[in-house]
Amino acid sequence: MRSDGRKNDEMRLIKITTDYIKYPEGSVLIEFGETKVICNASITEGVPPFLKGTGTGWITAEYSMLPRATHTRNVRESVKGKLSGRTQEISRLIGRALRSVVDMSVLGERTVVIDCDVIQADGGTRTASISGGFVALYSAFEKLVKSGELEKNPIKNFVAAVSVGVLNDDVILDLNYEEDSTARVDMNVVATDSGEIIEIQGTGEESPFSRDVLNKMIDYAFIGINNIIEAQKKALGL
Amino acid sequence: MRSDGRKNDEMRLIKITTDYIKYPEGSVLIEFGETKVICNASITEGVPPFLKGTGTGWITAEYSMLPRATHTRNVRESVKGKLSGRTQEISRLIGRALRSVVDMSVLGERTVVIDCDVIQADGGTRTASISGGFVALYSAFEKLVKSGELEKNPIKNFVAAVSVGVLNDDVILDLNYEEDSTARVDMNVVATDSGEIIEIQGTGEESPFSRDVLNKMIDYAFIGINNIIEAQKKALGL
Amino acid sequence: MRSDGRKNDEMRLIKITTDYIKYPEGSVLIEFGETKVICNASITEGVPPFLKGTGTGWITAEYSMLPRATHTRNVRESVKGKLSGRTQEISRLIGRALRSVVDMSVLGERTVVIDCDVIQADGGTRTASISGGFVALYSAFEKLVKSGELEKNPIKNFVAAVSVGVLNDDVILDLNYEEDSTARVDMNVVATDSGEIIEIQGTGEESPFSRDVLNKMIDYAFIGINNIIEAQKKALGL
Amino acid sequence: MRSDGRKNDEMRLIKITTDYIKYPEGSVLIEFGETKVICNASITEGVPPFLKGTGTGWITAEYSMLPRATHTRNVRESVKGKLSGRTQEISRLIGRALRSVVDMSVLGERTVVIDCDVIQADGGTRTASISGGFVALYSAFEKLVKSGELEKNPIKNFVAAVSVGVLNDDVILDLNYEEDSTARVDMNVVATDSGEIIEIQGTGEESPFSRDVLNKMIDYAFIGINNIIEAQKKALGL
Amino acid sequence: MRSDGRKNDEMRLIKITTDYIKYPEGSVLIEFGETKVICNASITEGVPPFLKGTGTGWITAEYSMLPRATHTRNVRESVKGKLSGRTQEISRLIGRALRSVVDMSVLGERTVVIDCDVIQADGGTRTASISGGFVALYSAFEKLVKSGELEKNPIKNFVAAVSVGVLNDDVILDLNYEEDSTARVDMNVVATDSGEIIEIQGTGEESPFSRDVLNKMIDYAFIGINNIIEAQKKALGL
Amino acid sequence: MRSDGRKNDEMRLIKITTDYIKYPEGSVLIEFGETKVICNASITEGVPPFLKGTGTGWITAEYSMLPRATHTRNVRESVKGKLSGRTQEISRLIGRALRSVVDMSVLGERTVVIDCDVIQADGGTRTASISGGFVALYSAFEKLVKSGELEKNPIKNFVAAVSVGVLNDDVILDLNYEEDSTARVDMNVVATDSGEIIEIQGTGEESPFSRDVLNKMIDYAFIGINNIIEAQKKALGL
Repeated sequence: MRSDGRKNDEMRLIKITTDYIKYPEGSVLIEFGETKVICNASITEGVPPFLKGTGTGWITAEYSMLPRATHTRNVRESVKGKLSGRTQEISRLIGRALRSVVDMSVLGERTVVIDCDVIQADGGTRTASISGGFVALYSAFEKLVKSGELEKNPIKNFVAAVSVGVLNDDVILDLNYEEDSTARVDMNVVATDSGEIIEIQGTGEESPFSRDVLNKMIDYAFIGINNIIEAQKKALGL
Repeated sequence: MRSDGRKNDEMRLIKITTDYIKYPEGSVLIEFGETKVICNASITEGVPPFLKGTGTGWITAEYSMLPRATHTRNVRESVKGKLSGRTQEISRLIGRALRSVVDMSVLGERTVVIDCDVIQADGGTRTASISGGFVALYSAFEKLVKSGELEKNPIKNFVAAVSVGVLNDDVILDLNYEEDSTARVDMNVVATDSGEIIEIQGTGEESPFSRDVLNKMIDYAFIGINNIIEAQKKALGL
Repeated sequence: MRSDGRKNDEMRLIKITTDYIKYPEGSVLIEFGETKVICNASITEGVPPFLKGTGTGWITAEYSMLPRATHTRNVRESVKGKLSGRTQEISRLIGRALRSVVDMSVLGERTVVIDCDVIQADGGTRTASISGGFVALYSAFEKLVKSGELEKNPIKNFVAAVSVGVLNDDVILDLNYEEDSTARVDMNVVATDSGEIIEIQGTGEESPFSRDVLNKMIDYAFIGINNIIEAQKKALGL
Repeated sequence: MRSDGRKNDEMRLIKITTDYIKYPEGSVLIEFGETKVICNASITEGVPPFLKGTGTGWITAEYSMLPRATHTRNVRESVKGKLSGRTQEISRLIGRALRSVVDMSVLGERTVVIDCDVIQADGGTRTASISGGFVALYSAFEKLVKSGELEKNPIKNFVAAVSVGVLNDDVILDLNYEEDSTARVDMNVVATDSGEIIEIQGTGEESPFSRDVLNKMIDYAFIGINNIIEAQKKALGL
Repeated sequence: MRSDGRKNDEMRLIKITTDYIKYPEGSVLIEFGETKVICNASITEGVPPFLKGTGTGWITAEYSMLPRATHTRNVRESVKGKLSGRTQEISRLIGRALRSVVDMSVLGERTVVIDCDVIQADGGTRTASISGGFVALYSAFEKLVKSGELEKNPIKNFVAAVSVGVLNDDVILDLNYEEDSTARVDMNVVATDSGEIIEIQGTGEESPFSRDVLNKMIDYAFIGINNIIEAQKKALGL
Repeated sequence: MRSDGRKNDEMRLIKITTDYIKYPEGSVLIEFGETKVICNASITEGVPPFLKGTGTGWITAEYSMLPRATHTRNVRESVKGKLSGRTQEISRLIGRALRSVVDMSVLGERTVVIDCDVIQADGGTRTASISGGFVALYSAFEKLVKSGELEKNPIKNFVAAVSVGVLNDDVILDLNYEEDSTARVDMNVVATDSGEIIEIQGTGEESPFSRDVLNKMIDYAFIGINNIIEAQKKALGL
């Protein structure tokens, strides 16, 4: 039994509010338990220079935390004057995950920026960002389909992400902050609704892990992925 | 009659939600119509070097906007690597306004940072930040009074802020974005519940204004200030 | 009686030297007592992107201080690698003040930069910068009129700025450094020769002020503004 | 058959030169085929603030490329004034990998910096950096053991890293630049001589992958890891 | 005959105004013809870490230009966010020159910063900065001797600097801007009143020069150096 | 006799390896004794804006050191976020030296960047960079001549650089680190194979020097220059 009463392979409550902010093409508030992330999708005409004239689009993501999303206040990166390595690493991860499920030639020469701003952090902010960012992206595309700017939604597959880890000797799913800070192994899995892996990032800095543990972590991850995709579909009315 | 149906001396709907984010000592979501700002107050022990050993505290503020709080997406200041002049100007204004109503010797050698993060902007973000930042500050102090860390709440007066301006030839109160972008004169007033002025900043770059217009703008501002202070008291259960 | 023997509504000696530096289109050394500011106006063809093709011009200002313009040496902002909030705030204020009195369509697609470099600071550097910057701007335009590049001088009104404040319980005009650092209330007024207000910025962080005090401060400000405009006209041989 | 004649599960020639630069405590030139990385280990007394007084040490890494390590010249990050996300991501990965095999309490309050400077890049620069960085670290520790500063070598396990990927439909080991730039899936595995995984990072942005493919990639990775550890031991005369 | 009527080995008019700005310990306006530089010396207690406890002092210099000291306006380095290579090179040169003639143990643990701000540039700004900076330094020391803080003036020798060059086929002394921009060879010499060289920097990027030309340039430089030292002594009343 | 057994006018062993890195148009490892510098020449089509349409080319250089090229580790300039004054000064010196011997109109509208990365430093890194950079440049041009892109090699003269100094009372040639750090006078000379001087930079911050010493230093410098040019020719097979 985990400290918040969950079973080892159980997700926290997933809550997805669409149309959260009024200006973005797609806007979502996603909650994994006490973790809350605003995901906004902005679509503009045009692409970066390396894609001009190719007829294909581009998607990037930017991840950030409010200074007091955490127990103690963090100095703003705008005040420090630079992005931390962690911020850039997560932003790049979100971007890759979302690009992998979009047919860029259907999107055409448009650029989408997914902003993921964590307003309250309790573990799993990057996986909530990917999972919520996908819903913002999907609904932004729907808006363009409705307005006739896009012929069809360029999404090829649903994508979601979840964390798994080893705490004491147990494999557990969807770690909260307290669990995450004491886990020996920490892994994030990004996967599609067709059961294929987009990204896997596991690290056992505190203690290496065997292939058996790796396999069990992946099993649990897919349980979580399926739960999240279900919630995504429900939020989108599908 | 204004485009949203308000009278010239009428505020938009004011909504103040306390305890919005769970970690900060004080946390508020303030809404002036469609403008929404998260105001978090973080209190830490210790003061900047210039106050060490004086027995008095310090308060600063940091203002920021999510990239898509506005109609079109703004580049993050953390990505640009520096704060804009506008951001610093507003942050300094909020800090001065809140310091003016706190008895720093009652606060003792503690530092408070008020983070004002605009998640949706429709005009008046700086006045909403001051007005909501005050509530976050007040309730953070209450928490310290309850826990016995502070003998009494160091707040000396309530403080609120509001914008006034000249649109066509009318003086109007609490401008929304559409009004703000076409107004000839724009003024912000910060004042206390005792009817005294903390800060007045009026600019007629587009067209200079007479002393009569100045006086009418101040009259309207005090109508707004009183409305907001009423809402602050209600939100704090006073 | 004030520490330097002035009456409460008396300006310091105003001295304006034109053609101070030989390269700029307009160049002025302005002195408000011991405060000395070099104001240079540089005019170039072309405008920023947002004005291209509109047939109208643009004016910006940059304010700076020599490191030893003050009692103790300040670190250069070029060495720190960024502009302080104060520097940007003053630069923006000077720009707004000067733009407000220029007919941009007469100027045409030209950009003017007003550089205000304080070489000695004794209070009122921003008001001296605006007042001297105006003379630099005016004489730069005269040069273009003489050379036939401009049909007529695009200046619509004279503009000047002055500080007023509350020291002890007295309202005083044109504060020097010693007065400024102990004043309870500090206000800057920018106004035209037609008696209209361009900008008003008053702050009572140390102690709020009543509307009566506000009115008296504005009365005094207009005495100062009129003195400065007289000096500007004399310096320009008008 | 691959373009350079290797079998799918075959490493490129591994060459490790110890004592490459004369000043560092440990210095190695590692070559994976045409990829060449200088790995220098610098040991200094003292630790970052968060470890002071704990009796344990710290290891970090910094990865960089010479501007012309690649086909076309890259702008220096020192000239741009900031580290790219990629550079920070790889530096953090190398640091985690090396920390995972060191007993920090045997190291004591010392800090080791591992500098990995790529002088020629042909794919696999991060895996060569980890594998060569380990040898530099090991030999730096040996030097301190010899001088009596350390009682014993704090290394707990050997560690190495290798890339695997999917090209067309084949899983291949140790991708060179040409293979890497056309692979559909790219994965890096860091593992110990005891067959346990420290880090696994796989991404299928271009095309998701199944669990079967994941398993085959891990099989191949361990073939590579064992080859590299053999080369490490030989270079260290063990 | 040169364009301004001078002989090849003739200096421009040298003018040195002491006590130019009222706050610095030493303050000088130096003019070499139309080149005008404000040189301020600021003395503070304490030294950089590498000199603490040694009983010896330190001197550094910072060189800068007002944006419109030149024909066309230069962007401020504070706005660019970094110092150019040229600025740093000249600042370092001034610092070395002035340190070379001061007995640092007589100075004691004090730091002097010499700020050289060019308000009008017409060639030779670095040599004017060194020559004027020396006078500011000397008079700052005199002030400390008078106040009893220093037992004696720590200056060991007078130092001055001048430029020489090759224009067409003539060696010329003290180049103005027009000459400097067309000279084939450009050299700066820093030397003492005892006829010894502190620094020599000659560059023939446009066209290499022979040892004979080098010797003639040094001959001319000493003529200039002696002229300047005479002016320095007169300005200091020696 | 010097500490490493050399005579006062004797160079260290010069070793030049061509084709060191495989991608650059020209690549050299140059060694002056224990000083080792990788010099890479990258040629691209096009020139900076100020040369567009002139038919002439451009050459710049960038100098850098690996963090552990020295006895103790230096913080990377990419991590600090800016180039030191020393780095920029040396980079500019290398650029001027190499530009001086190239016929830019033969080069045409092409830009060459010479990267000089010091992997081991034992004094004389800037002179080795110039001397090795020249060989990289020469062989890059040869490659373009062979491929027919250039009609002939644009090199007009060979160029090399060497340091001389005064240690105790002796003039010595090609100082190693130990000598350099205790020398009273330090001078770098850049000269051509026709015996003309490109650049001379001598500094006697620790102790001024007479014209006699200057002359002897230049005599020794030419001995060194001739040795280096001989080694350059041999390395190029001339």
